[in-house]
Amino acid sequence: MSRLKDWKSFMKSDLSRIFFPKNLAIIGVSSKGSGFGSGILRSLLAVGYEGQIYPVNPKGGDFAGYKIYKDVNDIHEAIDFAIIAVPAEFVPDALDKCRQKGAAGAEILSAGFRETKTEKGIELEKKIKKIAAKGIRVIGPNCFGIYCPKSGLTLLPGPDLSRESGTVSFISQSGAMSIDFAYLGQWTGIQFSKVISFGNGADLRETELLEYLGKDDQTKIVCMYIEGVENGRSFFSVLKDVAAKKPVIIYKAGRSIAGKRAAASHTASMSGDSIIWNALIKQCNAVSVESLWEMANVTLAFSMLPTRVYKQISVIGGSGATGVIASDMAETFGFRVPQFDKKLIENIFEFLPKPGSSAPNPVDVANAYIRPHKLEKILMHTASAETIDIQILFQFLHHYKSLAIKIGAKSLDDITPYRELSKCLQKILKSTDKPVILILPDIRQEIESLDVEKTIRCARSAFLECNIPVFSDIKDAFHAISCVSTYYLCKEKREK
Amino acid sequence: MSRLKDWKSFMKSDLSRIFFPKNLAIIGVSSKGSGFGSGILRSLLAVGYEGQIYPVNPKGGDFAGYKIYKDVNDIHEAIDFAIIAVPAEFVPDALDKCRQKGAAGAEILSAGFRETKTEKGIELEKKIKKIAAKGIRVIGPNCFGIYCPKSGLTLLPGPDLSRESGTVSFISQSGAMSIDFAYLGQWTGIQFSKVISFGNGADLRETELLEYLGKDDQTKIVCMYIEGVENGRSFFSVLKDVAAKKPVIIYKAGRSIAGKRAAASHTASMSGDSIIWNALIKQCNAVSVESLWEMANVTLAFSMLPTRVYKQISVIGGSGATGVIASDMAETFGFRVPQFDKKLIENIFEFLPKPGSSAPNPVDVANAYIRPHKLEKILMHTASAETIDIQILFQFLHHYKSLAIKIGAKSLDDITPYRELSKCLQKILKSTDKPVILILPDIRQEIESLDVEKTIRCARSAFLECNIPVFSDIKDAFHAISCVSTYYLCKEKREK
Repeated sequence: MSRLKDWKSFMKSDLSRIFFPKNLAIIGVSSKGSGFGSGILRSLLAVGYEGQIYPVNPKGGDFAGYKIYKDVNDIHEAIDFAIIAVPAEFVPDALDKCRQKGAAGAEILSAGFRETKTEKGIELEKKIKKIAAKGIRVIGPNCFGIYCPKSGLTLLPGPDLSRESGTVSFISQSGAMSIDFAYLGQWTGIQFSKVISFGNGADLRETELLEYLGKDDQTKIVCMYIEGVENGRSFFSVLKDVAAKKPVIIYKAGRSIAGKRAAASHTASMSGDSIIWNALIKQCNAVSVESLWEMANVTLAFSMLPTRVYKQISVIGGSGATGVIASDMAETFGFRVPQFDKKLIENIFEFLPKPGSSAPNPVDVANAYIRPHKLEKILMHTASAETIDIQILFQFLHHYKSLAIKIGAKSLDDITPYRELSKCLQKILKSTDKPVILILPDIRQEIESLDVEKTIRCARSAFLECNIPVFSDIKDAFHAISCVSTYYLCKEKREK
Repeated sequence: MSRLKDWKSFMKSDLSRIFFPKNLAIIGVSSKGSGFGSGILRSLLAVGYEGQIYPVNPKGGDFAGYKIYKDVNDIHEAIDFAIIAVPAEFVPDALDKCRQKGAAGAEILSAGFRETKTEKGIELEKKIKKIAAKGIRVIGPNCFGIYCPKSGLTLLPGPDLSRESGTVSFISQSGAMSIDFAYLGQWTGIQFSKVISFGNGADLRETELLEYLGKDDQTKIVCMYIEGVENGRSFFSVLKDVAAKKPVIIYKAGRSIAGKRAAASHTASMSGDSIIWNALIKQCNAVSVESLWEMANVTLAFSMLPTRVYKQISVIGGSGATGVIASDMAETFGFRVPQFDKKLIENIFEFLPKPGSSAPNPVDVANAYIRPHKLEKILMHTASAETIDIQILFQFLHHYKSLAIKIGAKSLDDITPYRELSKCLQKILKSTDKPVILILPDIRQEIESLDVEKTIRCARSAFLECNIPVFSDIKDAFHAISCVSTYYLCKEKREK
């Protein structure tokens, strides 16, 4: 298989030129600023890509202070990578020119290929494959490209993606999923190494990209959105290898009749049988999720929780019902909420407001306004229980709005002690080996409560900075912890 | 059973004095403004309760412009209802004085009763029961009271609950759940008739309240949060009757070992076996939900969707993956996303941007910025398919943020055409009999995107005003529609 040979040489030499290009051509930049080519140029400038940019358009002109070259060959420098955003019929020519110019790869943002199911579209995509086989690696067509915070490459509509680099990489067949997950990451606490939207995947696609990220030292967690794979056998073989080294989180779409039909017109994918998919994902010890939100939550847990198995949980919450609900949910996901021994219950009870509180686990602190230093004392005690692996703390910040009204406070942010609490929780993390998970429900989303929203967002950010995973909902949290736990349990068993 | 007799007379005569009191005593208002009594007085003033308020405290004084009476008997007017917020040991005396004064009922906010599992607490609650049996109906103790937008009664910390009256009533064993659901209602589109937090339920509790709301013309939908019932047989008998007339949505907590333990110390409840619960809820054709969020979503669907069974769905969305995902989720919940016939596909295709779009159902509009009048045309066509019962429309408003950056727009709200779209959707509702459900995902929740948040909230409000149910997530929407559908299907079958 000649492709495999190409791939191997790509793995060794040219990949850095694709993710970290010094010289970048953008084919299809209009001097009027319309179209995807100009859009991606604008986005690259907004994000702050530091390399050289060479816009290309046969009409010439200039845009955003850049001279537009009439032809790729007019560029005097060598090109590492190209972004192609011209109508489909002009793509093969543009791609071949980039190849001849010595570019290591190109992302083709244009649609109008195999996914249209037209003879013309299919033919055009075949041409792309042929050109790629001659020596240029292709991302797309019909994709949103590459986001790499370290190098400053960004996805199609992504003028405001973070430059903060992390250890999560995402391979997505869908452009919309790639940009939405990148945006989700900005506030849920996920930081990316590489996001690759590969669309129709005429050349580079799920298997090769997964294999590459499996070997990539900068990537500790791989996420995937897949509608269909080209070669199931090789995909699952690579998946098994990679998942044995690092967590691979897979969102497989196109499971239903209509979903398969939609996947075929979306990315020209054959979706395969969902029962087989589920079984194989499990066999490979990859993690299966069913929405982008689940993927974000699970990825956050893998990013922040120490590598181990979690079984027994303490729950510390601000109302009686919270404890009841959290306990129910814990058991649904296979966790236990063990009762503390008598002495510990007494110790905790000392710090609880009375009446209305309860200490045995779940701990009902009975008051939304309990002070951080008291919570610190309580959590130190609950962490001391040998039975406990991990702690869940609820904070209902919206109640501070009622308090603000009551005491006539000017700023909700001032009276909500999240900064103090984040420091207290950091102390707990440092002096115990038991992670704390924070639940911050967002109950008040009416137009008049944007102050609550702002406070919750600032709080979330403060806690995430202290390495405390934050979830909006207890179900999301338990699901995420259970994925981490199951992954490491299976990994341990296999390694034995 | 003398209680039943009391109840019957209550049902006939006194209930209006409890939910719509003209004269209200608040026992336990401190002139210093501390404590729950002063808090609820403040909240009643903030909400704008129009009746007479008589604060009581043996220490006398005044608060918030009100004279504080030293004793209930010092009040010269007759009292309809009392709010009691004094330490537990003083509650029986206060309650008995209210009874002697002729009050129809009282809500006891104080904790420190049966839920403490102490001899003293149990004894105090017995005393309350005895006084209640002599002729005053009691809500609580250990509760947050009653919220009734029409009369201006509000829950414990609820100074900013809406006065907009609706047709949903909520019976909650938990105070926190009652206030949180009331807050959720303010923006998810649920309007309340009555919310009753009954806590320990020493007197009035789940069964009687459900029976009352079953007969209450102002209540079209009943929601319940239950940790345990006093008498399973009579509860399920009443539930069956009420659910045959109107939807009853039940969130049953305390299903797990630790959850049962927590429920016992929270509201002194015996939670019962969850398998039996599930079976009985189903037998009664009540709707079971597993979180407050689910309850809100399901309630919204029951409030806004025409009374019928839904089976086949059209999906109109802004990206290819959206259609794939929505189709998968539809089938998971038992819906079909049928392919349109050739002629209709052609008609729809005419209005779609090219390339990258797709018409067969799901409809991929391929562009987040497609104009409302085009969407109107598309939705008119999709509604014309005989196979379709209900329509799902996705709007990804966060993409307008990228557009705003691109075009240098000053206000995100100005360039996001949600007002226009809500008018277009209203036209569709008027000229077809097929409801439209809107999905508004909230992808960008970073601190810097409060402008996106505000726009989404304003949009949500605009759509809800046009009677278009809005959900943040497609799974929530399908779950809610499936609950409505299943309820009416079972109801139809039983009525035949």
